[in-house]
Amino acid sequence: MDMSQYISRLARAIKPYVPGEQPRTERLIKLNTNENPYPPSPGVRRALQNYPYESLRLYPDPESRDLRQALARRHGVDPERIFVSNGSDELLALAFLAFFDPDREFRFPDITYSFYPVYADLFRMRAARVPLRGDFTLAAEGFYDSPGGVIFPNPNAPTGIAADLETVASICRHNAGAVIVDEAYAEFGGESAVGLLERFPHLLVVKTFSKSHALAGLRVGYALGSGEMIQALNRIKNSFNSYPLDRLAQLAAVASIEDEDYCRAMIRRVVATRERIIPELAALGFHCPVSAANFVFAGHERIPGERLADLLRERGVLVRYWKAPRIENYLRITVGTDAEMDALTGALALITG
Amino acid sequence: MDMSQYISRLARAIKPYVPGEQPRTERLIKLNTNENPYPPSPGVRRALQNYPYESLRLYPDPESRDLRQALARRHGVDPERIFVSNGSDELLALAFLAFFDPDREFRFPDITYSFYPVYADLFRMRAARVPLRGDFTLAAEGFYDSPGGVIFPNPNAPTGIAADLETVASICRHNAGAVIVDEAYAEFGGESAVGLLERFPHLLVVKTFSKSHALAGLRVGYALGSGEMIQALNRIKNSFNSYPLDRLAQLAAVASIEDEDYCRAMIRRVVATRERIIPELAALGFHCPVSAANFVFAGHERIPGERLADLLRERGVLVRYWKAPRIENYLRITVGTDAEMDALTGALALITG
Repeated sequence: MDMSQYISRLARAIKPYVPGEQPRTERLIKLNTNENPYPPSPGVRRALQNYPYESLRLYPDPESRDLRQALARRHGVDPERIFVSNGSDELLALAFLAFFDPDREFRFPDITYSFYPVYADLFRMRAARVPLRGDFTLAAEGFYDSPGGVIFPNPNAPTGIAADLETVASICRHNAGAVIVDEAYAEFGGESAVGLLERFPHLLVVKTFSKSHALAGLRVGYALGSGEMIQALNRIKNSFNSYPLDRLAQLAAVASIEDEDYCRAMIRRVVATRERIIPELAALGFHCPVSAANFVFAGHERIPGERLADLLRERGVLVRYWKAPRIENYLRITVGTDAEMDALTGALALITG
Repeated sequence: MDMSQYISRLARAIKPYVPGEQPRTERLIKLNTNENPYPPSPGVRRALQNYPYESLRLYPDPESRDLRQALARRHGVDPERIFVSNGSDELLALAFLAFFDPDREFRFPDITYSFYPVYADLFRMRAARVPLRGDFTLAAEGFYDSPGGVIFPNPNAPTGIAADLETVASICRHNAGAVIVDEAYAEFGGESAVGLLERFPHLLVVKTFSKSHALAGLRVGYALGSGEMIQALNRIKNSFNSYPLDRLAQLAAVASIEDEDYCRAMIRRVVATRERIIPELAALGFHCPVSAANFVFAGHERIPGERLADLLRERGVLVRYWKAPRIENYLRITVGTDAEMDALTGALALITG
């Protein structure tokens, strides 16, 4: 049999996204995929334990109405302006189909979430990369008047650097195409663009339960936007998978939203640890941009990033590293518990000392 | 703002799939989306109740290794020949991208699962419809030598009619492109093509936990195929969503597989009810093709399908109906419990009497 007859050209050519390692052993200190070091709200446990499992025989609500209503209350918007998805990665993929056209080039930063170029390839779309400034901050002007829209994370990944609200607003003002702001990490220090939604019907704000709700294992993402944008996402979603969120995910996400105080306290702890760790890393010879996320981006004055990542792994600490232009001397280090950070700095002191 | 600037042409033009109604009230008898009338295995409840919810802070295994191994044992194949997904609808969408090219026309039956033409539109692919015979059986020759592959459900939806294994094998022998057999309902009476996998590296068999495992609310689908086909699906999946199955779905699906006796008993009950109901429907003036699925396809000798569906709804019974050529005088009726079937035939006796 000739494989080229039964495997598509796309499947043969595409370079998939590579997620951070998910080790099967628990002996490693896992600072490589930006998970929250604290457990989710106890309300999630109660919701799961009391769940009438018999109902799993029935399809879930395809429109996730309870979850969208809970999110709408949380953000003070109408439920018709909320879209939910099987993690924010699925949401981003559907958003590419809903807002970008293959023949209109759109833009994202040269240093950014490495899934964006993969989506572009998957849907045969053309994208231009806008260089960040030398200090890794976003140069808003580079995104002005894009022929086919723009997408960027805020705070950016993997740098952790946040753009202020005026920068985001200026990009909205200077574009007629969609402006997608990926706020996976915004709760840890960024200014959310949700407040701009009333002014800009072409602005979509994407969020996730993975980080700020400590629910990466549940796969729930969501977006806020104008009614037109949410309808477009629904049309694409209903052409892909009518029931993307299972019953348990919808239920547990609602329980987590209802325990906002718990999530806020968790975020405060992560932020406090992040602020403590940055000077400690500086004392070990690292340069770290100001982070508004639940990770730090750290480059050492002497030892290359790949070498550091390998040496840390030998000592049982996983961090993320990209062999990519401009950032190959940096590590992305998730903010863990204080004890995990002590283990990290202890290992780094031995490696760099 | 000009909406055509920030909503894609695709999102504006596409006609989404319309799933069966998921009513918010429990007072309706729900025979419209082919759910299993019995609860899932009690092992699912135990697995969920004992789940260490703290682990939800971590991403799920992106490769779903435990689940794939359990499925591999169940089917006696290597885990490298199993792919899992967020329901079989997601799997079908990814399979279109993995096996069909936009410039090579592929084929599906004229009467079939109504999501197929939507996927074709979503990915800008060209499909030809092969007419079923007058009695709704599959005419294998119509699928021979397709330029770009074929896809069909077996048993077919919404007719419930199964093609025998020799028909499927002949379609495989007469194609160089991918042959995708959608076996969502095969456990209720069809002959599975899994036994053909050794002979045909271009055959993909798609299955789901929604029907035979009574887990529609959990969203787990899977496929068996050659290593090349599974790798192609993985490349597409990893270009779309690295973590499509949450931790709870993976766990509960494994628990259900391990309770095979329970699932078999559930299937036997559904089949017994189906065999009982068909002569009762015939006595009320319905023509029903022989069903190998957990639903029956029933056309009345006198009353049009749409009218019957409306009258049944007034009496609290939901069934599925399509205003489509050749089948507009048929209802698709899910096989429920015996009591639900009594309510159905009672209502139909009043309507048709």
